[in-house]
Amino acid sequence: MNPKKDLIGIEKLTAEEIYQYLDLADNFLEVLARPIPIVPSLRGKTILTLFFETSTRTQISFSIAAKRLSADVVNFSQATSSVKKGETLLDTARNIEAMKVDGVVIRHSAPGAAAFLGQHLEAFVINAGDGAHEHPTQALLDLMTMRQHFGSVKNLSALIIGDITHSRVARSNIFGLRTLGARVAICAPHTLIPVEIEKLGVEVFHNLDEIIHDFDVVMALRIQLERQQAGLFPSVREYRTLYGLTRERVGRMKPKSVIMHPGPTNRGVEIDPDVADGEKSVILEQVKNGVALRMAVLFIHAGGKIE
Amino acid sequence: MNPKKDLIGIEKLTAEEIYQYLDLADNFLEVLARPIPIVPSLRGKTILTLFFETSTRTQISFSIAAKRLSADVVNFSQATSSVKKGETLLDTARNIEAMKVDGVVIRHSAPGAAAFLGQHLEAFVINAGDGAHEHPTQALLDLMTMRQHFGSVKNLSALIIGDITHSRVARSNIFGLRTLGARVAICAPHTLIPVEIEKLGVEVFHNLDEIIHDFDVVMALRIQLERQQAGLFPSVREYRTLYGLTRERVGRMKPKSVIMHPGPTNRGVEIDPDVADGEKSVILEQVKNGVALRMAVLFIHAGGKIE
Amino acid sequence: MNPKKDLIGIEKLTAEEIYQYLDLADNFLEVLARPIPIVPSLRGKTILTLFFETSTRTQISFSIAAKRLSADVVNFSQATSSVKKGETLLDTARNIEAMKVDGVVIRHSAPGAAAFLGQHLEAFVINAGDGAHEHPTQALLDLMTMRQHFGSVKNLSALIIGDITHSRVARSNIFGLRTLGARVAICAPHTLIPVEIEKLGVEVFHNLDEIIHDFDVVMALRIQLERQQAGLFPSVREYRTLYGLTRERVGRMKPKSVIMHPGPTNRGVEIDPDVADGEKSVILEQVKNGVALRMAVLFIHAGGKIE
Repeated sequence: MNPKKDLIGIEKLTAEEIYQYLDLADNFLEVLARPIPIVPSLRGKTILTLFFETSTRTQISFSIAAKRLSADVVNFSQATSSVKKGETLLDTARNIEAMKVDGVVIRHSAPGAAAFLGQHLEAFVINAGDGAHEHPTQALLDLMTMRQHFGSVKNLSALIIGDITHSRVARSNIFGLRTLGARVAICAPHTLIPVEIEKLGVEVFHNLDEIIHDFDVVMALRIQLERQQAGLFPSVREYRTLYGLTRERVGRMKPKSVIMHPGPTNRGVEIDPDVADGEKSVILEQVKNGVALRMAVLFIHAGGKIE
Repeated sequence: MNPKKDLIGIEKLTAEEIYQYLDLADNFLEVLARPIPIVPSLRGKTILTLFFETSTRTQISFSIAAKRLSADVVNFSQATSSVKKGETLLDTARNIEAMKVDGVVIRHSAPGAAAFLGQHLEAFVINAGDGAHEHPTQALLDLMTMRQHFGSVKNLSALIIGDITHSRVARSNIFGLRTLGARVAICAPHTLIPVEIEKLGVEVFHNLDEIIHDFDVVMALRIQLERQQAGLFPSVREYRTLYGLTRERVGRMKPKSVIMHPGPTNRGVEIDPDVADGEKSVILEQVKNGVALRMAVLFIHAGGKIE
Repeated sequence: MNPKKDLIGIEKLTAEEIYQYLDLADNFLEVLARPIPIVPSLRGKTILTLFFETSTRTQISFSIAAKRLSADVVNFSQATSSVKKGETLLDTARNIEAMKVDGVVIRHSAPGAAAFLGQHLEAFVINAGDGAHEHPTQALLDLMTMRQHFGSVKNLSALIIGDITHSRVARSNIFGLRTLGARVAICAPHTLIPVEIEKLGVEVFHNLDEIIHDFDVVMALRIQLERQQAGLFPSVREYRTLYGLTRERVGRMKPKSVIMHPGPTNRGVEIDPDVADGEKSVILEQVKNGVALRMAVLFIHAGGKIE
């Protein structure tokens, strides 16, 4: 199966395409357990990480993934960029492509930025988050983590809690979970749920306590504290009271269920510290799987060959 | 021929020295076209890029060039430096040299900074732009690009448009073009032309429309919008009207002529978007050649051996 | 001898442990003198430098050291970190450890930060400075430099001048010098000397001119000019008059004595330019030794094998 040139989102992927990423990521997880966790697959390839929004962990995760594949990595973030000089995104990208970059990993605040780049570049483009649109590698590593725990994503039930309206993580996960045949529900105040979200095939709830016992996977989204000032929810304290993953609330979850979070967590807001570090939490497994999954994504789109 | 230790400017280079860089750069362009575009020439060498002015593309270009030669690269930019703590340039450099750095690529706002460093360091120094003085690798990649298109730089006619007074790119190109035997002209408002510029062997014009038809190479310089506030030209709109490379104006250029720009462009000011992306533009070739040219410069000054 | 997992400070090291670092660093100094100064010892290991305070030279020194050992290096500094988003230090570290980092080099303004990390991580932790607590690799490279010059540290006499209260460099050096059997004295205004410092086995002086002739090693500490505003010393001019290493004062030092400084220097404050660059100064040897010493530290804690 030939992959598309770019990975922009989960929305248009088939189940077969998703499993291709996940299967290869499982293989790379074995590579990462070796004493020398490096394969020569992408030797001589140059990957550019182009981050217009700060994200230490995602940029480091892609950077480590590329190095594990023996690619050269050039990191670029807005703080040191001549974007400040007024260059357009396209100009920057074209110039960097002229330097013979093979692939670009982009994070940008504008929905569509990654797709726009992909249309204009020969280099492959991986979307590392474009505004509230998609964050496909996050969803893929989440699906990978769920499959590890439950053997299959099909017929799982997943609940996503938080600011759905502004969350590319939620959108990408909804697409992926639905495509693989999972039941998906969201739970949030009315102000944080986009209109017509039901069309994506999700159930909508507002009262977490009534439903939390019913899901295999409970995923808390990071609350952007900036949103509070916009009046979208009354206070951090109230948010925690109604939607926070507290020990008491988590105690009522299904026996084998797990808790996920895309990080970084606001401890004491959407998730309590003892829950984030507790036995149901698979947050650090998500991070660990993230490197293997991003290796798989880079490998596939760079046209790497299995040795 | 033994190169000088440092590359500070084009002014003092002979034609033979310039051609040495250009010939090797042409060879490296072939290396860059290989599936694995890496040579082991500088393995074990450490190159420091020391940027006191932001320039994403130049720093990335040098960084990729060094990696293609298998050198280790350490990137340093002012934002994260202890220069903020009040260190002098010399102190910083000496300390880093004590760490066994083989070469330093420096950009600095002060004319003479690169030469000063070179005089005090054993490591070789490459000037990546020192104030309004010189930017030799930019001129060399420009000459390389011209030679690609016309077979030879000798007897070419080149027109440089814009803020000549503050442009190290203009100065370095004037020196290089003159040394290789090209005709050079500049065109700008009186306020942007330095006194006695004719002594460098260039013709001076103020009316672009009267002369644009007469040149093989037309190079637009980036307009620093900050200068406008200093009253050096009346408005962006007027600048474009009189000196901007518009489609209409470019239509009157010689049939086989080309348009160059050191980047990043101010689209709609000194160059229109459809001209920057049009068929006469070799802007992206300049960027592409830049990596090969910088490989040649690093190779020669690091004393690399042809394998 | 098995090293401890982490290197947090000099205080708890035995003489045997200190000599283990110093002996290996001497070996690596020979490696650094080779045409290709790289050994494959840590190939496949990933070292993270995690700097919450800016320090160009220390971060570059560790970074070069790790590359010389063939490790992969990921650099992280506060400016581009999601620490700004409110993550705790532990969260950041855990997440990065989940990405299979083998070792963390941390600089942080909080005393105890490195020890805290080490207790919570499987990865080894090297303290690159934690507040006013310790800076062990600086002290080890200082001891290495002293041993080079005098053949042995035992029975040497060392004088440390400056802001002892706020200096992790002073503390680490005092511990190391005392453990190896050197005589240690400090000299500073009363306001810059911590209470009960004598318990560490050091002599305390306030008049530099009375004692400078009596020491083999004179180490000037960097004066943090910020402290002046806090009223801890009257003026930069007065500080130089009383405690600055001027040519006149240095002229009265012992014949074979040396001058050290952890850098970056405030030239004209705690040390005059001609003294910093003078024949007694071993400041650049300290920097050079720093790379070899940090190679030794990384090698030992990463469990590298001698080939």
